[in-house]
Amino acid sequence: MADLAKLDDAALEAAVQSQGDTIKALKARKAPKEEVQPAVDHLLALKAELAKRLAGKDSDKFDRTALESLLAKRFFVTPSFSIYGGIAGLFDYGPAGCALQNNILSLWRQHFVLEEDMLEIECTNLTPESVLKTSGHVDRFTDYMVKDSKTGDIFRADHLVKQVLTQRLEDDRQLRLGLAPTDAKKSKGGKPKGDVLEPAVREHYELVLETLDNYQGDDLAKLIKDLDVRAPETNNEVTKPVLFNLMFDVQIGPTGQFKGYMRPETAQGHFLNFKKLLEFNNEQMPFASASIGKSFRNEISPRQGLLRVREFTMAEIEHYVHPERKNHPRFPEVRDIVMPLYSVQAQLAAAGPTKMSIGDAVAKGIVNNETLGYFMARIYLFLVRIGIDPERLRFRQHMANEMAHYACDCWDAEIKSSYGWIESVGCADRSAFDLTAHSRRTGEKLIARETLAEPIIRDALVLEIDKSKFGPAFKKDAKAVQGYFEGLMRGSADEWDEEKLAEIDAKLKADQQITVVGTDGNEYVVKADMLKIKRKTIKISVREYTPNVIEPSFGIGRILYALLEHSYFVRKGDEQRAVFKFPAAVAPFKALVAPISNSGDFAPSIRQVVAGLRQNGISNKVDDSGTSIGRRYARNDELGTPFAVTIDFQTVKDGTVTLRERDTTKQIREAIPVIVGVVRDLVEERTTWDEVIAKYPVFVAQDLE
Amino acid sequence: MADLAKLDDAALEAAVQSQGDTIKALKARKAPKEEVQPAVDHLLALKAELAKRLAGKDSDKFDRTALESLLAKRFFVTPSFSIYGGIAGLFDYGPAGCALQNNILSLWRQHFVLEEDMLEIECTNLTPESVLKTSGHVDRFTDYMVKDSKTGDIFRADHLVKQVLTQRLEDDRQLRLGLAPTDAKKSKGGKPKGDVLEPAVREHYELVLETLDNYQGDDLAKLIKDLDVRAPETNNEVTKPVLFNLMFDVQIGPTGQFKGYMRPETAQGHFLNFKKLLEFNNEQMPFASASIGKSFRNEISPRQGLLRVREFTMAEIEHYVHPERKNHPRFPEVRDIVMPLYSVQAQLAAAGPTKMSIGDAVAKGIVNNETLGYFMARIYLFLVRIGIDPERLRFRQHMANEMAHYACDCWDAEIKSSYGWIESVGCADRSAFDLTAHSRRTGEKLIARETLAEPIIRDALVLEIDKSKFGPAFKKDAKAVQGYFEGLMRGSADEWDEEKLAEIDAKLKADQQITVVGTDGNEYVVKADMLKIKRKTIKISVREYTPNVIEPSFGIGRILYALLEHSYFVRKGDEQRAVFKFPAAVAPFKALVAPISNSGDFAPSIRQVVAGLRQNGISNKVDDSGTSIGRRYARNDELGTPFAVTIDFQTVKDGTVTLRERDTTKQIREAIPVIVGVVRDLVEERTTWDEVIAKYPVFVAQDLE
Repeated sequence: MADLAKLDDAALEAAVQSQGDTIKALKARKAPKEEVQPAVDHLLALKAELAKRLAGKDSDKFDRTALESLLAKRFFVTPSFSIYGGIAGLFDYGPAGCALQNNILSLWRQHFVLEEDMLEIECTNLTPESVLKTSGHVDRFTDYMVKDSKTGDIFRADHLVKQVLTQRLEDDRQLRLGLAPTDAKKSKGGKPKGDVLEPAVREHYELVLETLDNYQGDDLAKLIKDLDVRAPETNNEVTKPVLFNLMFDVQIGPTGQFKGYMRPETAQGHFLNFKKLLEFNNEQMPFASASIGKSFRNEISPRQGLLRVREFTMAEIEHYVHPERKNHPRFPEVRDIVMPLYSVQAQLAAAGPTKMSIGDAVAKGIVNNETLGYFMARIYLFLVRIGIDPERLRFRQHMANEMAHYACDCWDAEIKSSYGWIESVGCADRSAFDLTAHSRRTGEKLIARETLAEPIIRDALVLEIDKSKFGPAFKKDAKAVQGYFEGLMRGSADEWDEEKLAEIDAKLKADQQITVVGTDGNEYVVKADMLKIKRKTIKISVREYTPNVIEPSFGIGRILYALLEHSYFVRKGDEQRAVFKFPAAVAPFKALVAPISNSGDFAPSIRQVVAGLRQNGISNKVDDSGTSIGRRYARNDELGTPFAVTIDFQTVKDGTVTLRERDTTKQIREAIPVIVGVVRDLVEERTTWDEVIAKYPVFVAQDLE
Repeated sequence: MADLAKLDDAALEAAVQSQGDTIKALKARKAPKEEVQPAVDHLLALKAELAKRLAGKDSDKFDRTALESLLAKRFFVTPSFSIYGGIAGLFDYGPAGCALQNNILSLWRQHFVLEEDMLEIECTNLTPESVLKTSGHVDRFTDYMVKDSKTGDIFRADHLVKQVLTQRLEDDRQLRLGLAPTDAKKSKGGKPKGDVLEPAVREHYELVLETLDNYQGDDLAKLIKDLDVRAPETNNEVTKPVLFNLMFDVQIGPTGQFKGYMRPETAQGHFLNFKKLLEFNNEQMPFASASIGKSFRNEISPRQGLLRVREFTMAEIEHYVHPERKNHPRFPEVRDIVMPLYSVQAQLAAAGPTKMSIGDAVAKGIVNNETLGYFMARIYLFLVRIGIDPERLRFRQHMANEMAHYACDCWDAEIKSSYGWIESVGCADRSAFDLTAHSRRTGEKLIARETLAEPIIRDALVLEIDKSKFGPAFKKDAKAVQGYFEGLMRGSADEWDEEKLAEIDAKLKADQQITVVGTDGNEYVVKADMLKIKRKTIKISVREYTPNVIEPSFGIGRILYALLEHSYFVRKGDEQRAVFKFPAAVAPFKALVAPISNSGDFAPSIRQVVAGLRQNGISNKVDDSGTSIGRRYARNDELGTPFAVTIDFQTVKDGTVTLRERDTTKQIREAIPVIVGVVRDLVEERTTWDEVIAKYPVFVAQDLE
């Protein structure tokens, strides 16, 4: 018998199946029992090994229920309006969650805004329809929804198909391995009713799952019907999928003069202010704007805790850059950073991500340009700095079919949690899409200028508008018509889209008139005598261009949730004590101050410690509740508070206190001012706990717990 | 002739009028010219003096237009969506405004949350209708609106009446003084068509203005009709006032399952989380929760810039306290702070505010209790710390008719700007209104417990529910009915509202049944045999109570606007240069770094300065634009940047740089590390510029401008 332990999981699964087939064949030819029995024994051994491995995986499996109950117990987060029955997809942050989020945002400001000298702005949540029409959200920010035909329960169509097919494949796998014969009636996949799937069906399901984003409208309806996808709990049929726009409508003004929406992302406010931002930046390119704010999405049926919510905090950067010069001056600083990249090619080959330096990735053209690569590296550094496990972090490139209509390359920072790999930061090259669209719609120039090193002098086709005829002919619409022609200008100095001018000229010569669409969207007939198109020598020394935009966009709630999972561990020992090992800089509270008893003698020392910490801006919580010091440390661990300063009878004698570090539970004992200084240096990341215990003798506490 | 300069304004006005009457009388009795002329000369002298004074006031008047154009030029703030035509009442903050707001909020967190160990939380903006129904907003968060009967222009009814009557009184005053005979057709008051008002009419207008809050519904309609209030620009009649709810509606969920609103204030989220907050605080009272977030109000016709907007940032504190023990342990720290208090009594006597220590105000019962007084003093200290002029700050007590339905005392911190005295922080004692209302509506106990120093043992009336009968009788509604009776409980240990129990007992004895309203709002008939009311000896050692709430509520946008006005000044000198004299801690950017020329030799020094500042978390802007250093300083002054570090040819030789302070324009010259340290100490308020120039020699710069 082969050493089963040496088989990998896939080989083991294959062996179980082939051994099953062998036995079937033996039985089919009515082989004698002596021949069948060893084969059956071998199958049982194989299955036992497989079951052991699966059980092992289950015990390694992240205990989300335990985490969630701790998050509730220590008031990190709670469903909003719970005493009123709650509303799915809305959460409140309690003191611990709110402080954690504030610290993440404060590090974000340091890491991006301050370090890169970005222009932070704050725009409104209320947004008029016209803006979101231009951006494409009114027409395209939609998901398909279906209803349980009897109960009316609502599902997002693609999520439902995914859930049902995944369940069927899992049921099938279990059935084939003979591990857990599924009770057909209880299967949430609707199928397979006790039968294994045909290989062709299995392959079809897998293909559908991989290409689910391609199914829209009638195709999606047909898919649901063909695969007999039903509501999981009731097994009822579902209704035909209908499009649902995820934006919340609002009427602005008392008579609803302005139709609007709660913004679904924070980006548009940046683009609309581009001209003022460039001016503020003394007309210098490239530069970036940044903002932190709420966005709102009326999710069809939010079911994934903090990962899919109806209101959430985003932190967005829009970096404006010359379309042909996307190099970045600080790229050399990040060139050698190695991170896991999951390119389109690798995804198509199902090869998994590759660890690669961002320098190589840009050099090989895997990542489109230096600026995009620079931000990917900066995002990576930020996430690791706040405590995301680098082994559960990867950058996945968007496939052509999932890329937003405006983007030319896009990489998502995905973080692995118990929900799988979750998109947490998008990093997209939005090209010139947004600035061009808003400019076209409003007639406002959203451009930058560059002075050419050497002016270009050349012969060119130019256009002149006869304003004396335009005004009387178009009256108040003259600006809109003129806007159309100005849109053909390529720079400030008589440089035009000559191909287009030649075309217009030909048309005018042939018909004596031409119909154009003004910037207001209406058609106008322009007569030949209102324009002059001619050849002229032009000198181009300044050129206008529409900047491209690289957009790193952070879903703060998702990052925060992943950080909670990555930081959570259970301390081995007598009791199973939960700990959040947040880095000190993001921990909600930095220090516990705990007097060993309620004795009034401790009051001056408590005041001295608290005042010292406060002067250094270090948040702390005094816990003089009188419970055992061990329990207070445990409560502290559950909040992820990295340090505890304990005041005891020794303190009254010699002014020393102990300092306990959360992850090691080791302590030192020094005078109060020394301890305050150590805590400050630790919180500000000027030193590490290893350095501290190398410098100060470790204090072995009397057992107080 | 009296010395006119000695007359105060009112006496001068009175003199003008009485002299006018004298002349009329002279003319009426056809007095000779020799007698009339000196009287006329005297009148002219009086009028000249009056005109001079009014002109003087005009030149002192705050130049709001200049401020606004600077705010646009330096991108502090801009109307949102302006390239789409804009929407009234929505503003974006540019880099300078956003940084200013961030710094105000960061100081707010330091001053309140950190210093007072408050529990900061973050709740959602989307809020279901049921919550806002309980809070009273669905029924009462309304304003009256009227329309121009022809153009459809919209006005808030009370604002319109106020504007029109104020204009009429002003026109009348001008007419009576003969200073500016108003062209009747141009008067925006609709009246007085060239005639002065009868004294009775004048008095009536003044009375209406003072009591405007009392006019509602039909009274308001009648007032508008009786006074012939019309739309100011068109002089058209206005429609009958109708109530308009200021909340923005939203439908939550794809089928609009949940009717909701964008929250109009951030307070409700605190109250709903009260139980979890108290638990987080280890069940210890008193304590406070705090939050910073947006609120939304669909203002009828916002016309006052940043002061009346449709979306704004609030910072709110809810301090929970025992209803009978509203003393505050830290009150002695603020007792002696003197601030201008404008009490109800003083307002009724039109006496103006009085400067008084908060200790005296509480002792005299002018301010209801210590906790309220403590927060008023802390608010005062905060506002002055961020740069609000204490001479333009007062606390005004709410009159009975303007106090919210829930409050038992309320003081507004009002800040004077060019728009008048504006409510910027409210400080209300909301009593137990909110916790009681939400508890009653949801059946969830929102209470705190206190252990009595000495248990009370006494005979008392108690109630026992026979659950074996309740269940079968009321089924799923049993909890709601039981909730009614539990509402009569006063503590955890069989302590009841005995008066009410006696009443119920009498009723049951008489009728054998009683009708009660359950916590679900429905009526239920309870039979005599389902309850037992009897006398019993009870021991009360723990008592439950509903905490009262003291609520300081900050309108951040209004404070920010007032700060801009109070910080703005124009530097005397050759050019009229505008400066914002923000305290360093709130200034948007702390330091300009300016090399005197574009020479490459300066690069290492620039890097050294920037790195030093960044390490200390000090935001700075390098301006190597090549414009004159004087212009760069001026740009800096317009942004309110307190310090400028200039790198010149001397720097390359000896590593020294100059440091310029914004308000004095004085400079010192020291080595880079010294200068970085000085800037850090100044920004962190560890030293003052006066101390700095006392310590380091003042550097007299060569004229570089």
